[in-house]
Amino acid sequence: MLNEEHIQALRDIVGPEHVATSRTARLTHSFDATQRQFMPEAVVHPVSTEEVAAIVRLAAQHRLPLLPRGAGSGFTGGALPVQGGIVVVLTRMNRILEIDTDNLVAVVEPGVVTARLQEAVEKLGLFYPPDPASKDFSTLGGNVAECAGGPRCVKYGVTRDYVLGLTVVTPSGEIIRTGGRTMKNVVGYDLTRLFVGSEGTLGIVTEIILRLLPKPAAKRTMLATFAHIDGAAEAVSAIIRGRIIPTTLEFMDASAIDCVRGLPGIELPEDCRALLIIEVDGDSEQLGPQLDRIITLMQPLGLIKATIARDSSEAEALWRVRRSVSPSLRKLGPNKFNEDIVVPRSKVPEMIRALDGISRRLAVPIINFGHAGDGNIHVNVMVDLREPGMQTKVDTALADIFKTTIALGGSVSGEHGIGIAKQPFIALELDPSTLAVMRAVKAALDPQGIMNPGKIFPKESSLALPALKAEANQAG
Amino acid sequence: MLNEEHIQALRDIVGPEHVATSRTARLTHSFDATQRQFMPEAVVHPVSTEEVAAIVRLAAQHRLPLLPRGAGSGFTGGALPVQGGIVVVLTRMNRILEIDTDNLVAVVEPGVVTARLQEAVEKLGLFYPPDPASKDFSTLGGNVAECAGGPRCVKYGVTRDYVLGLTVVTPSGEIIRTGGRTMKNVVGYDLTRLFVGSEGTLGIVTEIILRLLPKPAAKRTMLATFAHIDGAAEAVSAIIRGRIIPTTLEFMDASAIDCVRGLPGIELPEDCRALLIIEVDGDSEQLGPQLDRIITLMQPLGLIKATIARDSSEAEALWRVRRSVSPSLRKLGPNKFNEDIVVPRSKVPEMIRALDGISRRLAVPIINFGHAGDGNIHVNVMVDLREPGMQTKVDTALADIFKTTIALGGSVSGEHGIGIAKQPFIALELDPSTLAVMRAVKAALDPQGIMNPGKIFPKESSLALPALKAEANQAG
Repeated sequence: MLNEEHIQALRDIVGPEHVATSRTARLTHSFDATQRQFMPEAVVHPVSTEEVAAIVRLAAQHRLPLLPRGAGSGFTGGALPVQGGIVVVLTRMNRILEIDTDNLVAVVEPGVVTARLQEAVEKLGLFYPPDPASKDFSTLGGNVAECAGGPRCVKYGVTRDYVLGLTVVTPSGEIIRTGGRTMKNVVGYDLTRLFVGSEGTLGIVTEIILRLLPKPAAKRTMLATFAHIDGAAEAVSAIIRGRIIPTTLEFMDASAIDCVRGLPGIELPEDCRALLIIEVDGDSEQLGPQLDRIITLMQPLGLIKATIARDSSEAEALWRVRRSVSPSLRKLGPNKFNEDIVVPRSKVPEMIRALDGISRRLAVPIINFGHAGDGNIHVNVMVDLREPGMQTKVDTALADIFKTTIALGGSVSGEHGIGIAKQPFIALELDPSTLAVMRAVKAALDPQGIMNPGKIFPKESSLALPALKAEANQAG
Repeated sequence: MLNEEHIQALRDIVGPEHVATSRTARLTHSFDATQRQFMPEAVVHPVSTEEVAAIVRLAAQHRLPLLPRGAGSGFTGGALPVQGGIVVVLTRMNRILEIDTDNLVAVVEPGVVTARLQEAVEKLGLFYPPDPASKDFSTLGGNVAECAGGPRCVKYGVTRDYVLGLTVVTPSGEIIRTGGRTMKNVVGYDLTRLFVGSEGTLGIVTEIILRLLPKPAAKRTMLATFAHIDGAAEAVSAIIRGRIIPTTLEFMDASAIDCVRGLPGIELPEDCRALLIIEVDGDSEQLGPQLDRIITLMQPLGLIKATIARDSSEAEALWRVRRSVSPSLRKLGPNKFNEDIVVPRSKVPEMIRALDGISRRLAVPIINFGHAGDGNIHVNVMVDLREPGMQTKVDTALADIFKTTIALGGSVSGEHGIGIAKQPFIALELDPSTLAVMRAVKAALDPQGIMNPGKIFPKESSLALPALKAEANQAG
């Protein structure tokens, strides 16, 4: 529990105007995109690595929980102060420190909003590919913490693939630097990628070195409608086997199409039961022939119609089909359970059929769309929790969804992390020995358990500590 | 020390014919490409994950050092049994278990030779890009342990970028599975990439899930000669800024050119003081225009001549220039110190000038070539150690080389790891707190220190344990 002395110490570190303990300030930092709520005891806004380190040393000394936080736009509760403590908001650390156009490297603070970096580098003819849907408000620090993805990952990879180096304040308040400015670096363990995706449980990232690419010269967008999800899925494999890696290969299944059909400006063929939005980028003269080849590949696979946007406003109109799904979900139920599963690409149709089955059996709407190129499906279970027995139905649906995902060789989280939302399901994917190694890493770096406590690891098994731990004690 | 009981236990695990303790067998496994030598006490050849796990459990019980080993072709001593113990040779585990052409995934055992996998997938129209120079004999397990690179990394990335999942036997003999078959996976810590590049110090990898790509339709090769290294280096940046990412961008500086000039079949312009070998791959109709654009970009930068190979035998002839460097080095001295540094791409000319300076000051030949696209320079210090005072000169040269590398924002190891060869220099790059975090990870996973002991971490600081450790004890 924080006392007045701790609060005063925080004020001494960051200045009194950057420490908030009012109910309003704490409320504002008590929730994230999961809409679950846990009150912190204080909110601090440091402006430098040194201030963060001083905050962490204070917390380490008094065993106070620390919650690093960017925009709070995560979908799994990574930024929620489930054990109270101090929320460390990094949005004042929002400087782009350097854009090195010779070496295609950017150095940024964690509070930079993803889209701001993208705009800044695009002005210089460069390109930062990761594009989570939240990119207009989520921060690069949050993207690193969760290893954010987005539609362009099929061609360009995820956040992890762009992080070259980090400055991190460890749970003991030490400042460490991992990686560097070069693509190749095999000096000791790959701490950079250990921190990427660790959801703020191993330290607080205060500086990020990112790899950039040259900005592709041009981009073209196509909407392809299919009679059946199998055809759309086979089309995805055929395109990639045909040596074209589109920038994006987004799909909507029949459930998602039904959601948007008939909305103003959206016209889809009546027999359309699946669709792909395909974007290609590169030299402009290549893109037309590439789209033609894609159409040839899709033709025998139940393609109903392929519409190629002639300009950016037509492209925008095609994207409206996909972007209208989320806003239209609410009419199906006030409560959304938004899951983010991944299966091997070829298993997408089987997964969609299983999702249909679960939806029918439990009589709950399940709407599916996502990144077909990655096998990454955003599954939306839409219900009204005020209906009696609905929570049980949801629990059954989610458990069935995750079990099927694992049975198909997939993963329960593609780009949203575990946080608290997926804690009950992590043991479906990871066996106890693998979890034990992760716990051993956590215990080694954060022996007091002050850094974003209560996340990732399932609560049940926190008592049953693993063989590794027993070994460590033996070795004493 | 191993006793007869341990040897018998090993025989019970893998069968007596797969345990060797003869002097010949131990000698055969006492060295690697560093040519340094340390005798193991026994050599075992397991054939399955279960056998490896049983060996590790035996070693854990009796605190015996374990040395995982593939082809023993590493350049930093990663496979050397510096503390004796058991060499665990993984070359019997050489099956390609699966090539999934739908999802572009291969599942292999660690003993598969890299080029064998490349041939197998290329027959199916697929592509495994990482291509260390040792690919005809080095194993995928070794590539994973060291995070191997190669010339194609500028376009395709390093081994790390292709490893999706691993089966690992931990130092306590548990079998864990990390990652999976999907590109996206954010379930818990990224153990996959923690093990990649950990040089066998955290566990023994027994199965590897690799990402494949479609095989590019065509490839073209060009040799470009320059009047000066600055022009060649600027050409590299200009090409990449011009939105062409070649498959390879190899360079040779004047020292390397002097080595091969006049050899049979090699004709180079007299005023050529730097050269690039540039390969592009993709659709065949794009490649000609791409090479033309590259020539246009290079023209104002001191380009002397650009020769485009018309077929694969002409390409082979161009590559001969580069491949002749290593064999011709011996004439400069019987002892080679082969270092593998990386600097930000734009710093290559400055680094080459510094290397020239060191060579002149100490009067030792230093020959440089490598992967210009990555800023990855293979530096070869050629001497005769029998000359009095030469070892001191070499030590001075290496220290100067590494210090300059770090001063230019680079890294002391790009693709060869640390092993024992670079232990003395790791602290130039990593500050004590970063090393402390790495040590904490090692101690957490391998508390007894049996897994490839004596590697990576510098000996001096093994006594001075870090703040993190102190914290752990406090918390204990």
